[in-house]
Amino acid sequence: MSKGSSIRTIHSAHHHFGWDNALAPVLTVAPGEEVDFDILDSSGGQLTEASGVADVAALDFERVNPVTGPVVVDGAEPGDALAVTVVDFEESAWGWTAIIPGFGLLADDFPDPYLHISHYDAERVRFAGGIELPTVPFPGTIGVALAERGLHSVVPPRRVGGNLDVHDLTRGSTLYLPVEVPGALFSVGDTHAAQGDGEVCGTAVETAMRTRLRFDLVKGAELPAPQFRMARPAAGFAPAGKGFYATTGVGPDLMEAAKDAVRAMIDHLGRDYALAPELAYCLCSVAADLRISEIVDQPNWVVSAHLPLGIFV
Amino acid sequence: MSKGSSIRTIHSAHHHFGWDNALAPVLTVAPGEEVDFDILDSSGGQLTEASGVADVAALDFERVNPVTGPVVVDGAEPGDALAVTVVDFEESAWGWTAIIPGFGLLADDFPDPYLHISHYDAERVRFAGGIELPTVPFPGTIGVALAERGLHSVVPPRRVGGNLDVHDLTRGSTLYLPVEVPGALFSVGDTHAAQGDGEVCGTAVETAMRTRLRFDLVKGAELPAPQFRMARPAAGFAPAGKGFYATTGVGPDLMEAAKDAVRAMIDHLGRDYALAPELAYCLCSVAADLRISEIVDQPNWVVSAHLPLGIFV
Repeated sequence: MSKGSSIRTIHSAHHHFGWDNALAPVLTVAPGEEVDFDILDSSGGQLTEASGVADVAALDFERVNPVTGPVVVDGAEPGDALAVTVVDFEESAWGWTAIIPGFGLLADDFPDPYLHISHYDAERVRFAGGIELPTVPFPGTIGVALAERGLHSVVPPRRVGGNLDVHDLTRGSTLYLPVEVPGALFSVGDTHAAQGDGEVCGTAVETAMRTRLRFDLVKGAELPAPQFRMARPAAGFAPAGKGFYATTGVGPDLMEAAKDAVRAMIDHLGRDYALAPELAYCLCSVAADLRISEIVDQPNWVVSAHLPLGIFV
Repeated sequence: MSKGSSIRTIHSAHHHFGWDNALAPVLTVAPGEEVDFDILDSSGGQLTEASGVADVAALDFERVNPVTGPVVVDGAEPGDALAVTVVDFEESAWGWTAIIPGFGLLADDFPDPYLHISHYDAERVRFAGGIELPTVPFPGTIGVALAERGLHSVVPPRRVGGNLDVHDLTRGSTLYLPVEVPGALFSVGDTHAAQGDGEVCGTAVETAMRTRLRFDLVKGAELPAPQFRMARPAAGFAPAGKGFYATTGVGPDLMEAAKDAVRAMIDHLGRDYALAPELAYCLCSVAADLRISEIVDQPNWVVSAHLPLGIFV
């Protein structure tokens, strides 16, 4: 990430847990300004490169998902959209992917904690022996304060953004967030080095990163939910040379269809690549993309999980 | 499509409605063999290039979704996978996209019938003035007979395939279908010239096409549902030059989130491109892709609708 002498940095000591429009802002920025955010990983530093599965079991959930901020954007008013352009990242060197009991799409199938450490640079994530993913960094949590008073959990994303976990929000993408309070009160956290559509095991390649963002306003946009603009979907960074394998879930409930598609992919990874189920589940979370292939042929819908085979090097 | 002197053709007169394992096969093929299928459009010829909205209202639903077949594949047994490789298409020149009352993701928002005719060739679909899509042909309905006796509706896809509407099944892709009856009893129909993930208005660019398929067997595959292999997802054919715009739906129900994402895209297309809601809804169906961005941050999930802006020429 290039240095900009005029660019201000918000250090990760300025983090908070959850969304609350009564929080004191740490910085006020003008539309058009770029700001660097030091972002902790989603464990808030509880997991390290040397952590093991016992550390997952011992996670203090009061300290997960810290977000850096909040920032006041000058002139932002309810009804506006805050346009946040993802300018750049300063990647760190390692990240973690965990199965956390009670969390994740297949929580019932995977009741035990599990931890997997990856190393990465700006180009690729060395996920495991013979498995490499393109590094596609993005902030998993990015949002503004709600109009409703009080402290709101950071876990669920909302109409004002938050824990969106949209991997398309990488360098060059612009996210439009509905503003609900004067100044917007923007915060950001939960940086990921790689993730698939769905983040199915509940975690991506979770990693601390410095992130540079630019703020602009679209007056009176009146958006119902976040929208974004991007050069291409993050899935388009997948290595294409070896093609893709896809599994499906077919049935009357999209959630169950998604579970079936992921279960089938885990089985496929076991049979064809000899991956243990836990590692295969984590790989689906960081590299497979969930698509709704068909949502109109009543009463059955089709959810597909796409895996790029070029990750097997 | 190249002519192959040894390739047999099943003409569209050999079509049936619904799946029934008691249907007499029209052809028996050996593993490794290619076959050409003449495929009617999903209206079974009821809609023509000169049709209007009254013809949509008058559709005879007893005659929709004809499939050509069935074909016996020599040696196919329950528990095998029938591998169907999509070899080639002979495109026709026009296709229709309709809003059919009571059908489609936003059936409650769009109660009235609507019909839109597109012209296309092997390269592109001229959807409307200033809007062109890449032609990505595929058969919407592709499947084998169920083990259960009796006639089963062709509308819903099932564990044995059928009306999957997976637009990734274009030239070069291989679909693996669970075989449930001896010989598999394969049929195919509902060819589309272009579609997005979701097929949200309920119809794609619906068009008759001759389709060449190759059949192979994977003995004892024991698949739980269809799986497929492809060079790249169909969404990867979208023109990338102008980037993509995405809307989201955020909430505790994937179906409602998908509806919200599509509604937001229709609003966006109205505001930024002056498209009437009905045409925008049809455009979403043929060009926008539904992704499950996040399915683990309880209790709210994120569904995104991606639209390639390069379709605006």
